[in-house]
Amino acid sequence: MTEPSRLSLNTATTKRWTLREAVDGAARAGLPAVGLWRDRVAEVGVASAAKVVRDAGLRVSSLCRGGFLTAADPAGARAALADNRAAIAEAAALGTDVLVVVVGGVPAGERGLADARARVADRIAELVPVAREHGVRLALEALHPMYAADRAVLSTLEQALDLAAPHPADAVAVVVDSFHVFWDPRLAVSVARAGREGRIAAYQVCDFLLPIAPDPLLSRGMMGDGVIDFAELTRLVAATGYSGDVEVEIFNADVWAAPGDHVLATMTARYRELVLPHLGG
Amino acid sequence: MTEPSRLSLNTATTKRWTLREAVDGAARAGLPAVGLWRDRVAEVGVASAAKVVRDAGLRVSSLCRGGFLTAADPAGARAALADNRAAIAEAAALGTDVLVVVVGGVPAGERGLADARARVADRIAELVPVAREHGVRLALEALHPMYAADRAVLSTLEQALDLAAPHPADAVAVVVDSFHVFWDPRLAVSVARAGREGRIAAYQVCDFLLPIAPDPLLSRGMMGDGVIDFAELTRLVAATGYSGDVEVEIFNADVWAAPGDHVLATMTARYRELVLPHLGG
Repeated sequence: MTEPSRLSLNTATTKRWTLREAVDGAARAGLPAVGLWRDRVAEVGVASAAKVVRDAGLRVSSLCRGGFLTAADPAGARAALADNRAAIAEAAALGTDVLVVVVGGVPAGERGLADARARVADRIAELVPVAREHGVRLALEALHPMYAADRAVLSTLEQALDLAAPHPADAVAVVVDSFHVFWDPRLAVSVARAGREGRIAAYQVCDFLLPIAPDPLLSRGMMGDGVIDFAELTRLVAATGYSGDVEVEIFNADVWAAPGDHVLATMTARYRELVLPHLGG
Repeated sequence: MTEPSRLSLNTATTKRWTLREAVDGAARAGLPAVGLWRDRVAEVGVASAAKVVRDAGLRVSSLCRGGFLTAADPAGARAALADNRAAIAEAAALGTDVLVVVVGGVPAGERGLADARARVADRIAELVPVAREHGVRLALEALHPMYAADRAVLSTLEQALDLAAPHPADAVAVVVDSFHVFWDPRLAVSVARAGREGRIAAYQVCDFLLPIAPDPLLSRGMMGDGVIDFAELTRLVAATGYSGDVEVEIFNADVWAAPGDHVLATMTARYRELVLPHLGG
C-alpha cells in the first residue's frame, strides 16, 4: 500500500499529545505533514517546533490560527492585529505558507452581523501587506453558520471569496473544511470559483455527527461516522486542481480519549477508503 | 397605544397551553391572530379548532406543519404524502392559506444531502395540485444549517426559492424565520427576490440565543434577548411590500416555564420596540 502522501494530522485531533508526540505519531503512521495549533507551538517555542517537524522529515501543512478580528474597541482591535502579525511571522518561521484565519463573532452587546463583518474586511486589508512580506497566505475559514454569532461572522465559502476578492490570491485565500461547508446549497459553485481564483489554501476533513454535541464545537467526527458525502466534496476539490495536503482536524471528546496511535490508524484507513479514491492525480 | 394589528402568537410559544387557552390568551392580549400547530388542533378536532378561533374573533396566520418528505422507501414516501395531503386540507378548514413545510433531513444510513433534496423536489411537485385545489400555499421553511442533516435539507431562502421556482407562487411560497436566516450573507438579496416573486407567505420572529442550548432546537429566544438585528431584517421584509402577520414562534424551556400571559406581554412589548417600527405601512 502506498504511503498517504497528502494526509496531514492536525494536532487538535490528538489533543492530549504534545507537539513532539504528535509529530512522532504522524511519522510512525507514515504521514508527510502536520497541521499545528499555536498553543502547541508556544509550549516549545517556534524555533524548536520548526526543528522537531523538520528533524522528523515532515512538513507543516498549516498553522491554526489567526483571526478574531471583530472587536469594536480600539484596544481590542490593536491587540488582535498585533496577535495576527505574530501568527503570520510564526507561520513563516514554521515553513508553512498557510495561516488559518477564523474571523471572530459578534462582540457582546452588539446586534446583527453587519458591523462585525465590515471590521473583518478592514482588518484583513491591514494584514495583507504583513502576510505578503512573510510569504504567508491568510486562509479565511468559513465556519458553519451555527457559529456565526460567537466565532465567525464568515459563514460560507462564497462570502470568504468575496472577502478575499480585493486582495491577491497569494495573500488571501480560503479553507475548505468539510464540517463547515457540507450543508451549503452553493457548495459546488463556490468550490469551483475558489479553484478558478486560485484561492484554495487548505482542504480539511472531518465528519458532521448527529445529534449535535452539547458543546457544539465537539460535533466533529471521524470521516465515515456522520452524514457527509466525502466522495462528492473531494471530487469538487480535486476538480479545481488542488494538490495540497488533506488535513484531518477533529474536536471530539471520544477521539481525544482514545490512544493517539489508534486515532491515527483509524483516520488513515478512513482517508484511504473515503477521500483518497476521489482526490485524483 | 394602537393594537398590534399584525402580531400573531404561534402556539408553540405557549407550549403548555391548550388551543383554547392560547386563543383566549392571544385575544386578552389584543392580538388578531394565532399560528397553530397540528398537535394542538388534533386534540380538539379541526372543526372545533376553527370554531374556537373564529368565536374569539381571531384569524389563523399559519398551520405548522407539513413536510418531512425525504424518506427513501416507498412506504415512507406514501405515508408522508398522505400526511401532507391531510395537513393541506386542515389548513383550508382552519381558514388559513399558509401551511408551513419543514422538508425533512437525511434518512438514517444515507450520506450527503443531494438525494434527499431531489426527493423533496419531486414530492413538492406531487403536492402542488392538492395545495391549489384547497387554496393553500406550501410555505417552504429554510431551517438553520445546523439542522441540515436531521430536520431540513433546505437551508437557505435562496434554495427555498429555487425549489419553489417551477411552481406558481399561489401554490409554493417561503417562510422568512429570523432564527433560521439571520446569518445568511445573501439575506438581503434573497428576501428581495422572495418579495419580487410574490412568495413571502409568512414572517416569523424570535431571537438566536448564545450559547446554543444543549438541545439545539431550544435556542430560540424572545426578540431582544439574542444577537439578531430585527430592525435590519424587518426593513428588508417590509421593503418587499409584505403585509401579512408577524408570528412569534419560540421553542425555549424558560419561555415555556413562564406564565402564558407574562410571555404574551413580553412578546408584545418586544414586538412594539424591535419589529413594529420597521414594518412600515
